[in-house]
Amino acid sequence: MRPVITLTTDFGLNDPYVGIMKGVILNIAPDVQLVDLTHQIQPQNILQAALVVKTAYPYFPKGTVHVVVVDPGVGGVRRPIGIRSYGYWFVGPDNGVFTSVIDSQANCYELTTEKYFLKDISTTFHGRDIFSPVSAWLARGKTLRAFGRKIADPVMLDLPLPKFDGTSIAGQVIYVDHFGNLMTNIDAGLLEGVFERPESLEVQIGRRTLQGPVSSYSEAPEDAVGIIINSWNALEIFHREGNAAQKLKVTVGTPVRVTQAE
Amino acid sequence: MRPVITLTTDFGLNDPYVGIMKGVILNIAPDVQLVDLTHQIQPQNILQAALVVKTAYPYFPKGTVHVVVVDPGVGGVRRPIGIRSYGYWFVGPDNGVFTSVIDSQANCYELTTEKYFLKDISTTFHGRDIFSPVSAWLARGKTLRAFGRKIADPVMLDLPLPKFDGTSIAGQVIYVDHFGNLMTNIDAGLLEGVFERPESLEVQIGRRTLQGPVSSYSEAPEDAVGIIINSWNALEIFHREGNAAQKLKVTVGTPVRVTQAE
Amino acid sequence: MRPVITLTTDFGLNDPYVGIMKGVILNIAPDVQLVDLTHQIQPQNILQAALVVKTAYPYFPKGTVHVVVVDPGVGGVRRPIGIRSYGYWFVGPDNGVFTSVIDSQANCYELTTEKYFLKDISTTFHGRDIFSPVSAWLARGKTLRAFGRKIADPVMLDLPLPKFDGTSIAGQVIYVDHFGNLMTNIDAGLLEGVFERPESLEVQIGRRTLQGPVSSYSEAPEDAVGIIINSWNALEIFHREGNAAQKLKVTVGTPVRVTQAE
Repeated sequence: MRPVITLTTDFGLNDPYVGIMKGVILNIAPDVQLVDLTHQIQPQNILQAALVVKTAYPYFPKGTVHVVVVDPGVGGVRRPIGIRSYGYWFVGPDNGVFTSVIDSQANCYELTTEKYFLKDISTTFHGRDIFSPVSAWLARGKTLRAFGRKIADPVMLDLPLPKFDGTSIAGQVIYVDHFGNLMTNIDAGLLEGVFERPESLEVQIGRRTLQGPVSSYSEAPEDAVGIIINSWNALEIFHREGNAAQKLKVTVGTPVRVTQAE
Repeated sequence: MRPVITLTTDFGLNDPYVGIMKGVILNIAPDVQLVDLTHQIQPQNILQAALVVKTAYPYFPKGTVHVVVVDPGVGGVRRPIGIRSYGYWFVGPDNGVFTSVIDSQANCYELTTEKYFLKDISTTFHGRDIFSPVSAWLARGKTLRAFGRKIADPVMLDLPLPKFDGTSIAGQVIYVDHFGNLMTNIDAGLLEGVFERPESLEVQIGRRTLQGPVSSYSEAPEDAVGIIINSWNALEIFHREGNAAQKLKVTVGTPVRVTQAE
Repeated sequence: MRPVITLTTDFGLNDPYVGIMKGVILNIAPDVQLVDLTHQIQPQNILQAALVVKTAYPYFPKGTVHVVVVDPGVGGVRRPIGIRSYGYWFVGPDNGVFTSVIDSQANCYELTTEKYFLKDISTTFHGRDIFSPVSAWLARGKTLRAFGRKIADPVMLDLPLPKFDGTSIAGQVIYVDHFGNLMTNIDAGLLEGVFERPESLEVQIGRRTLQGPVSSYSEAPEDAVGIIINSWNALEIFHREGNAAQKLKVTVGTPVRVTQAE
């Protein structure tokens, strides 16, 4: 079984930075499968990176090493960390990008053992100098203990949580994808726990009131904005054959309110 | 020989969707070579995807699995299909994306055998739940018979064909690439079959009349728009060291007329 | 050890051209690791490609084949070449893209042995027809001698060099990355050789005068433009948590002057 390393960064695709990380990895672990999750995280948007990792990591084989380099504090006091959680490895800066994968079972280590890093560590590109070589050594079978000491206080982001007031759920849009689909922080489990008829809801976003959910995009009328439970079991607002984000002029953070339809 | 799976989608590169498909594939077929054709098909542009696949598939080793996910009808009545044609496999929605690779020799199957799909198939992401696992099982050696029943009526697009009226060929621009080169649906074989001197043609596009073809880009004057037989043996309009699409303000669908030069 | 082939082009990511090159390579060398450096070189910007290659190549395992296809002269008189230098292979057009890797020790060959090319070589896509197959054969163990005759006069670009007038260094911005960081052609070695206190410099760019360098981005005040020695040991101008290129409205070629701070 060839080990897998995934890469998620805000480096974009114009520069050779991602390729350079892969070169460093292949020097140490020539047989890995390298997979890009995305390199188009908005510059320094830690929350977006945290959501991408949460969404993607479980679809990979156990033992996959997920590297995230969205790292505004590079070279400063923030720690480089490695995490073992749910059978996966995670490597990157300790700034909250791994919030969603750290629970009470997770083991977090500060990465300090310089013999596994590149020589002459820069203060501006730890993706190349620290995270790539550590991920490659993990793929080759080393365990986190080799790289430093265990820590109990990794940085955790306050992820926005939905609230139920007895009548309605107040949530928000947390991710807008390439198609303009609006993913909310309200999942199907919550809807089913709270409403008697989760198949018949009313969603308010901006000035719009939407009915649903439909069970597939094609069930919605052609030019309609609709709601659906998406492929991550989250409530999503979409525009069939269009772009809901543009149509509704909404973005990450826009409030969404869900009530039982009459 | 490591099997190859190629991926063509309209998912863009901002979201982790393509990476997730690769994760699903690597769970089943850890040794595959994964190759991206493009993920920047215009959202839901089936015709563009069909052209990309036609252009690219024969350059891969026989046995390669080509997965295409441009799928506006996901979750509705359109069928998921697998095709065996010209020694390759093709996997995706039955909406016409495979028009160019289906001929009388092709074998098409509807994909229905759920044990090869992910559990809990979503209605919004069959690329992850159906097409990725099926492509991985094909790469591992399963044949299409394992996934469902043979069908005789795959959806076929009406591809725009050039017409010859005895004097001139009326065709159109069918693809505009990153450099602004304008690929037409008129190929060298047709030009040779129809004109006595195919090395001396006149091409009308918009208000322009162009002479050619030249035998290489560098044969054209520096700021000139010219015509050439491109690397797919198709008539192409180009702007040397510039962008013909911008210069001529033309796009996919623009008519092109070819006559014998005097 | 699986051989590595890297690809650098100006093809962009909308078209299947890069995927097609990979297909050609995998027909010949199915076990290679394929790594994209970038495909977003500005169309026909040879100097930018030369800098990307210079920046990235040494981070890969020795024996890696670096293919570059930024090739405005394709099909014309420019020669296809292969180079052996610093333990790496380089393959592409002889137009200066390899300037930084050619020194007196390098061996350069014109690629002429057609049996290693695709049949029916086009005049518009040597990336597919010549450079991909040659790179794959190199990865499989052939040496350059197999592909043609040695040449002594590869095309070399005049790279912009910094000048010291006894008081100040006059250099320029040579690369602007995705974050808007401005890399100059002035490296740390020069600064140390020329100034008594290289830790205390004054940099003039446009109307701005900057003090530094800082030792990490996070050392600069939050909204400040600063200077730093970057991860390639070059003087770089950055805007903490912002975009220096936009903030200062500068681009490649903008002059930079460095003096000893008082």
